[in-house]
Amino acid sequence: MKQKVYLDDLPWEEALERYLSYLREAGSLSPGRPELVPVEKALGRVTATPVYAIVSSPHYHASAMDGLAVRSADTYGASETAPKRLKVGEEAIAVDTGDPLPEGFDAVIMIEDVHYVQPDVIEIISAVPPWQHVRVVGEDVVATEMILPASHRIRPVDIGAVLAGGVNSIYVHPRPRVAILPTGTELVQPGAELKPGDIIEYNSRMLGAMVESWGAVPLRKEITADNFESLKKAVHDAVDEADVVLVNAGSSAGREDFTAGVIASLGKVLVHGVAIKPGKPVILGEVRGKPVVGVPGYPVSAYLGLELFVKPVVYGKLGTVPPAPEKIEAVVSRKMFSPLGVEEFVRVKLGQVGDKVIATPVSRGAGVLTSLVRADGIIRVPRLSEGYNAGEAAPVELLRPAGEIRETTVIIGSHDIALDVLANFLRQKYPAATLSSAHVGSLGGLAALRRGEAHCAGVHLLDEETGDYNVSYIKRYLPGIKVYLVNLVYREQGLILARGNPKKICGLEDLVREDVRFVNRQRGAGTRILLDYRLKEMGLDPARIRGYDYEEYTHMAVAAAVKAGAADAGLGIRAAAQALDLDFIGIGEERYDLCVPAGHWDTPYIRRLLEVMAMPEFQEEVRKLGGYDLRDCGRVMWHNDM
Amino acid sequence: MKQKVYLDDLPWEEALERYLSYLREAGSLSPGRPELVPVEKALGRVTATPVYAIVSSPHYHASAMDGLAVRSADTYGASETAPKRLKVGEEAIAVDTGDPLPEGFDAVIMIEDVHYVQPDVIEIISAVPPWQHVRVVGEDVVATEMILPASHRIRPVDIGAVLAGGVNSIYVHPRPRVAILPTGTELVQPGAELKPGDIIEYNSRMLGAMVESWGAVPLRKEITADNFESLKKAVHDAVDEADVVLVNAGSSAGREDFTAGVIASLGKVLVHGVAIKPGKPVILGEVRGKPVVGVPGYPVSAYLGLELFVKPVVYGKLGTVPPAPEKIEAVVSRKMFSPLGVEEFVRVKLGQVGDKVIATPVSRGAGVLTSLVRADGIIRVPRLSEGYNAGEAAPVELLRPAGEIRETTVIIGSHDIALDVLANFLRQKYPAATLSSAHVGSLGGLAALRRGEAHCAGVHLLDEETGDYNVSYIKRYLPGIKVYLVNLVYREQGLILARGNPKKICGLEDLVREDVRFVNRQRGAGTRILLDYRLKEMGLDPARIRGYDYEEYTHMAVAAAVKAGAADAGLGIRAAAQALDLDFIGIGEERYDLCVPAGHWDTPYIRRLLEVMAMPEFQEEVRKLGGYDLRDCGRVMWHNDM
Repeated sequence: MKQKVYLDDLPWEEALERYLSYLREAGSLSPGRPELVPVEKALGRVTATPVYAIVSSPHYHASAMDGLAVRSADTYGASETAPKRLKVGEEAIAVDTGDPLPEGFDAVIMIEDVHYVQPDVIEIISAVPPWQHVRVVGEDVVATEMILPASHRIRPVDIGAVLAGGVNSIYVHPRPRVAILPTGTELVQPGAELKPGDIIEYNSRMLGAMVESWGAVPLRKEITADNFESLKKAVHDAVDEADVVLVNAGSSAGREDFTAGVIASLGKVLVHGVAIKPGKPVILGEVRGKPVVGVPGYPVSAYLGLELFVKPVVYGKLGTVPPAPEKIEAVVSRKMFSPLGVEEFVRVKLGQVGDKVIATPVSRGAGVLTSLVRADGIIRVPRLSEGYNAGEAAPVELLRPAGEIRETTVIIGSHDIALDVLANFLRQKYPAATLSSAHVGSLGGLAALRRGEAHCAGVHLLDEETGDYNVSYIKRYLPGIKVYLVNLVYREQGLILARGNPKKICGLEDLVREDVRFVNRQRGAGTRILLDYRLKEMGLDPARIRGYDYEEYTHMAVAAAVKAGAADAGLGIRAAAQALDLDFIGIGEERYDLCVPAGHWDTPYIRRLLEVMAMPEFQEEVRKLGGYDLRDCGRVMWHNDM
Repeated sequence: MKQKVYLDDLPWEEALERYLSYLREAGSLSPGRPELVPVEKALGRVTATPVYAIVSSPHYHASAMDGLAVRSADTYGASETAPKRLKVGEEAIAVDTGDPLPEGFDAVIMIEDVHYVQPDVIEIISAVPPWQHVRVVGEDVVATEMILPASHRIRPVDIGAVLAGGVNSIYVHPRPRVAILPTGTELVQPGAELKPGDIIEYNSRMLGAMVESWGAVPLRKEITADNFESLKKAVHDAVDEADVVLVNAGSSAGREDFTAGVIASLGKVLVHGVAIKPGKPVILGEVRGKPVVGVPGYPVSAYLGLELFVKPVVYGKLGTVPPAPEKIEAVVSRKMFSPLGVEEFVRVKLGQVGDKVIATPVSRGAGVLTSLVRADGIIRVPRLSEGYNAGEAAPVELLRPAGEIRETTVIIGSHDIALDVLANFLRQKYPAATLSSAHVGSLGGLAALRRGEAHCAGVHLLDEETGDYNVSYIKRYLPGIKVYLVNLVYREQGLILARGNPKKICGLEDLVREDVRFVNRQRGAGTRILLDYRLKEMGLDPARIRGYDYEEYTHMAVAAAVKAGAADAGLGIRAAAQALDLDFIGIGEERYDLCVPAGHWDTPYIRRLLEVMAMPEFQEEVRKLGGYDLRDCGRVMWHNDM
């Protein structure tokens, strides 16, 4: 098997600079011929030329108030002791806001300040300065003045100002047309019946929405199979039609990756392979003077490839540059290792806890698109860094506005499906609020509280000696920290089994059977502690369980593994089994609490959660998940002064 | 004349809270019936219900790499001293990224790590852990998991993740339909021939673009004349058709302001008049369960009225809240007085000068829409404050991203039209860069440099004794500060006169004539100093000039006053006369320089300007304005060590 290799492993800035310079010199980065568009249709478009006023605004001397127009000269010398009288209709003429001043009049007295001495005579007790309450010609804009420069993205106020200047159509840069070519024999359209190996072709829709949001027109093409000639024809045709062509994917160096070869055969490959993670297999090319980019197949890689390399091209063709992302400093909550030699883009969740913004990394898999959905920001770990230590500050590029992040309640700890329901109801009741949950197990949650990284932790830690939950662990792991322990739910834990229980598993004792493959939860998870407790109770040796080391981080992941046949059994909550229509054998009820440090207790972060927990609709929705009892939901089970 | 009054003068937060509570209780703030839309058309829409995955992603165990799939159990015990061999095609099966693992296989060896000992036999020297390089079922999303909560605005990545979860259509809140009713007998459509008193109806286009950018559908209606019955019918019909109705304007309390009366006759006026400036005459009403808002007529007031009162309603009907604006702290460059009792929204220009962000107020007129176009942010002066002193820090809500503000070169000082051309070329050459110029006259510019508020100042200050420009003023006003003085242009100053010179003005001596009305520049302007110098030289008493106290701040404003007949003559540059097609009598050439403190000299703020000033296209464009000589453009005329 002959193995092709990447041509390059360039730092991305260098790759981008090389690419943009090449395109610039080739004239491929210039906007197309300007389009004349009506101003009122120009929202979001970019001016191709400066916009100059044709008329002044106002184009006549206008009264700025409702009142009486006067000649200022008539009022000179007026005082309390020597008032002047003006005849209404001759020397003082009623005007409303916006009315033109009568010929020869140069000031306005506000109606509130007019003093009538007879029905048609007013008295003036001080001189009126010229141009008082008058909007003189050109106050807003003078004819011939520049209202907008070139390369300016039109906002609503610009539309008003340009029309006010008498300009009804303006030249804007054409929206670049970006062809998106999904390639891959394994791709199927959304909605198709799925066989193993089929991949839903969703990338082109995401990429299309990205380029659309930048001001370009996406042209989404049919799926091309992994075949050199078909792809070559597709790229050739797309180059005819579009200003920029994206091929997704086949950009790697595998057996069926034809994109680089196709671009090379039609034009030129400038860069193949960039030292970033995810997103390495990017191809930057050019065909007949048009940018053609090979975009990696994994969705997070594709997203990053577009952000880094296609966004500047699209903005360039609009005569402008991408807006700088909003940035903040955050404290990294866990050690974040990153290999030397690549710049890694780590997705993080953020939350304001006390006076710090805490960044917690989420999944780093290039295929985990939901990590990007849930992320609040991205930390770039530079090529020459091995990462950040826990507690270190790092710059974060925001994916959500900083204001929203300040309204986020951060919960770190054990996972429970009821938290998703809580998040959803919270958002409906307080649209500005978000619940951000990171799943690191119960003990991980207490550790996060100790480090001041969360507003609360979800915990279900069984004390093997007392049979009680959480309190003894809190005393041990959070010494000296005052907390409130509030119940969220009681839930049923048990064995999650394939539907119909084909292996005839009847309890934990069957886990040591040779033919049974288990899927475990990670160390520190309350569910794992429960398992170990029960195994010990029953005298079963964990080493005898096949799959004891196969760890997943959530109940749903455990259930998914069973559903997919990767394991025959896993320990988890009934709701997870029920969600995936699996069998379930209960082994007992456990208490799942929220542990809240006293310092956060009386803050909106927690008050809002407690309000939602008290809502009957919330409780009903959780009950429907199955295996939940909410008899103590929202009740303070313990606090240090009790 | 019977004078109606505002009902209210409420703090805006109170007015808003009263309004939203009322609407909420009336059910008028709830989103309409959810719409089912294809996910790929859902960009920017807001979810009406949570979105749950229907299929897992991946929905099968997928190879995460190109390589060979193996059974991990087959590799246990392998080591360098005891390697294991696997038969390709039986025990090791070639897979590409995304391929399903063959039945019974549970790990992948990357192609780069495969060691062939025979064409169809590979050797393994360490055990392969289960699930190595495998994307297990549900790694991204598990079927039944919540992908998005309700009330979430769809971004491109969400489209990808939802489709990946097997969901092709989602329920979103309908876009609220917002009817916009322009009212006013004086309004004419853009493009109409303008008579004095005609006002171009541009507000509805601006307001339409605003609500559109928030996610609503604007329904722009025909102009209604100022007539109670016509307006009543228009509002009645609009309430039938739309979810929210905006009446612009007639919201004040004048003779022809019918909006409040109309709303009261059809429904209810909850608030009329809010303690804000600009924007006081806002009407918050309700007709048949629908919000009806009277929006003030001045464009800046209209903009603010919408931002404060309509935006929360539109977002509310989308099940969410407006995003919090980005905020920064800035140092106020000049005393900013604001009346007690109203919250004033002061538009400011911003620039990063040294380590401070400087805020300089622009025009505060409610009719000056270009002030909003040019503003970078808004400072809110609270009701119980009389404003800010120069040098005080104030919070600013940004209208442009902070990143752009950091790229802004701040020039404060005398006005020259060439600065607009410079701004335009700068933006074209450096799309991220902006030139922000504030016009306070030459001496004002030097004062701004002294206070560290600008990167440079535009100055043309004639030394009456030496005939030289600027240097003696710099020595006097910037003692101890090192600066560079770079020439921008020489320009012709002279009398700007009505076309055809009807008053037969031949020189400065005619300014003292009884029948000649003059328009002056403000104190501290170089042009004013030039005038005073020449008057003194000629022995003319300024007190004899009619209009000597009528001050404008720019050459264009002076020219506009002459053009409109508000004055017969003004002193200014030839380009301003030429732009408005006026007569001009030159009185001499003067030098216009940029004064740059040495600390800013070698920064991008100045380097970029100098680069643009060296461009022949820039110089040509300035020459075309008329009256300019660029023989020294970009030349350092003086610096302190010379």
